[in-house]
Amino acid sequence: MRAALLSVGTELLLGEITNTNVVYLSRELNMMGIDVMYHYTVGDNPKRLAEMIEMAFKDCDLIITTGGLGPTQDDMTKEIACQVMGDELEMRKDLLEELKKRMLAYKSHMTENNLKQAEMPKRAFVFHNDAGTAPGFALGRTVTGEEGGEKTQSIACMPGPPREMKRMFEKSLRPWLESMSDGVLYFRELRVFGIGESDLETRLLPLIDGQTDPTIATYAKSGECSVRVASKRPTREEAERAVNEMIAEVDKIIGDSIYSYDNQEIANVVGEKLKEKGLTIACAESCTGGMFASALTDIPGISACFDRGIVTYSNRAKVEELGVKQETLDAFGAVSEETALEMAKGVRRVSGTDIGISVTGIAGPDGGTPEKPVGLVYIGLDFDGQTECRKIDRRIKERNRNRQYAMLSMFDMLNRKLNDR
Amino acid sequence: MRAALLSVGTELLLGEITNTNVVYLSRELNMMGIDVMYHYTVGDNPKRLAEMIEMAFKDCDLIITTGGLGPTQDDMTKEIACQVMGDELEMRKDLLEELKKRMLAYKSHMTENNLKQAEMPKRAFVFHNDAGTAPGFALGRTVTGEEGGEKTQSIACMPGPPREMKRMFEKSLRPWLESMSDGVLYFRELRVFGIGESDLETRLLPLIDGQTDPTIATYAKSGECSVRVASKRPTREEAERAVNEMIAEVDKIIGDSIYSYDNQEIANVVGEKLKEKGLTIACAESCTGGMFASALTDIPGISACFDRGIVTYSNRAKVEELGVKQETLDAFGAVSEETALEMAKGVRRVSGTDIGISVTGIAGPDGGTPEKPVGLVYIGLDFDGQTECRKIDRRIKERNRNRQYAMLSMFDMLNRKLNDR
Repeated sequence: MRAALLSVGTELLLGEITNTNVVYLSRELNMMGIDVMYHYTVGDNPKRLAEMIEMAFKDCDLIITTGGLGPTQDDMTKEIACQVMGDELEMRKDLLEELKKRMLAYKSHMTENNLKQAEMPKRAFVFHNDAGTAPGFALGRTVTGEEGGEKTQSIACMPGPPREMKRMFEKSLRPWLESMSDGVLYFRELRVFGIGESDLETRLLPLIDGQTDPTIATYAKSGECSVRVASKRPTREEAERAVNEMIAEVDKIIGDSIYSYDNQEIANVVGEKLKEKGLTIACAESCTGGMFASALTDIPGISACFDRGIVTYSNRAKVEELGVKQETLDAFGAVSEETALEMAKGVRRVSGTDIGISVTGIAGPDGGTPEKPVGLVYIGLDFDGQTECRKIDRRIKERNRNRQYAMLSMFDMLNRKLNDR
Repeated sequence: MRAALLSVGTELLLGEITNTNVVYLSRELNMMGIDVMYHYTVGDNPKRLAEMIEMAFKDCDLIITTGGLGPTQDDMTKEIACQVMGDELEMRKDLLEELKKRMLAYKSHMTENNLKQAEMPKRAFVFHNDAGTAPGFALGRTVTGEEGGEKTQSIACMPGPPREMKRMFEKSLRPWLESMSDGVLYFRELRVFGIGESDLETRLLPLIDGQTDPTIATYAKSGECSVRVASKRPTREEAERAVNEMIAEVDKIIGDSIYSYDNQEIANVVGEKLKEKGLTIACAESCTGGMFASALTDIPGISACFDRGIVTYSNRAKVEELGVKQETLDAFGAVSEETALEMAKGVRRVSGTDIGISVTGIAGPDGGTPEKPVGLVYIGLDFDGQTECRKIDRRIKERNRNRQYAMLSMFDMLNRKLNDR
């Protein structure tokens, strides 16, 4: 089944609200094996709304609208849908009673314009609204297709407020749709660190090329990438099997760079491993200025592992807080392998944790030299007394990107270390 | 001018990402007096994309696309736009050089699929991309209108990643659009902390009601609000005067809660004041886990003021790093005014800075008690030996919202203090 989502509301065209309904509906419909082909948004204008419904039916047999079912004058989705589908509105006594009860419960008196919410197209299949006053409905029509044969087209009209829309979808629309669906989509998203998007796609091309099912798509995130493997099959079992077989192939090519097979943030992946292994950690940050500690402490319950983080921005702080030697700073500079390692060892020593991790670098935009350009970063790790250092040298000028990449690299280095144990 | 926004990307139709680009563009275009008539979203499919562009031009003379300019196979917006507008792609040496430089800087090797990013329609007006590898462009065509007369239609193609899209809009697309529209738009965005959005709107209603120019709009941001005052007049001088007169009125009502008159982050506002006054600062964080230090060190050149930050997550760390008394922790608990003040004094003492600021609280979702519920936060400040404490008690369960609000409150407390000096 090919579906179009049609959002109705001038406030969307003014950028006053973010359209989260289409995100929710797209995800749910795809999961049900319904292909969402288009999203459309139109204002509270009867002519344009009618045109858009007809236009959407040119390429789809299902339209789901959200918004415009309220009591006010500019709510007209029901009226227009009814007209386009060739039906008439009638006052429904049962809905009127329901409405009166609800208004009473709300302690708000019934106004004239409320009455129209009890009207419904005669052929409509009504969706009751547990969370608001506006009922939704589904309505079908039979038309002659290009090939001359008859085909059925359906429109389902849902309220705009996300809370009401979701409740109605779960309770009424999903069951109504399930009877018409033709297959199940299953997908997993892999998270990758250390490979750029175009490089990633080039390496996966042998798998991507000519693939129709499962499909493989790569996406760039800030400083990292993800790979989505999706399959649509008659049953969820078959779709899952197809996806997992393809992931095994992807694994052979870029397995060592995949840190999550279910779209987890790398901070979460590392945090869960620390909790699971019962390891304690402390960090010493310079250029990231607390980003690593902040990301790690975003995880509920991490206090069992994370003892402290020290942001030693000044050299004096590096000496006083971490015991970095002044000679080291004088001889090699604050941004050097030697300083990074002394920072990692220092923070582990003062906090008495299993792991000490450090970072020092030149985030930019200024402060770079020919020998030590902006983007140069050293990450130090002291794991039970075993130390190592990673050097990053990307010639990127943007401060926030350098900081972000340095922070992610700290987690990547930790993650690989934790996997080896 | 009537505009349509066309978002390209299968990930949108799968509900994997929320379309924030249309929110941003709709706001900005409406502010410029350009009517946004429709939002369209289509997947990475050449035929449907081409049809959608033609369809959008039926009722609009400007189309702005986002997405599909990347290097990978499924990126095809440029190719299709070029074809629909009746132009041809050519390899642009200047763009190729730029691209090579950037790839070199990224230290990522040039792959075949990167090359197509240097191609452009011959008639295109190119928008350079400061934040990524994909340039944008604008392209026009002349068609015969219904009434027989000739009219111009334009398409502007922008990258999909919001960061790149916004930078390109500010730097290139807005000026390009302004050159086509009548009158000049001038606006300023005020940033507000400490007033909820509905409260804010209620207080500004006397000014908002019946206003056509300047317009006043309030927006909710995470934990804070902003007020946008905009005017479109024949000359920039007139627009500026109208906006500034209105801001003077806004100031009379909520002046004490405005921390920026030009849409600055509160961290930047505080950072600049610290630099300007030549003050040094250190911080001690518990529940925010480094968010304050991270936000402050996001500011280039802040190393002149920021000495160090200590994330004391464990009680032991509070005692060892900051000299918080064990008796204080035993008597009042880690989340208390007493502990917050000892943390602030402690971090100022160990770092020898002018200012020491601290935070301790219960971010949740767990760890709350009837006496100390989730959302309870204490902020301590030691400014040249003058100490004070702020208590926050919002009954909010979400960890990230509590952490974010606590961090912003630290900056707000500092900002008000710096204003008094």
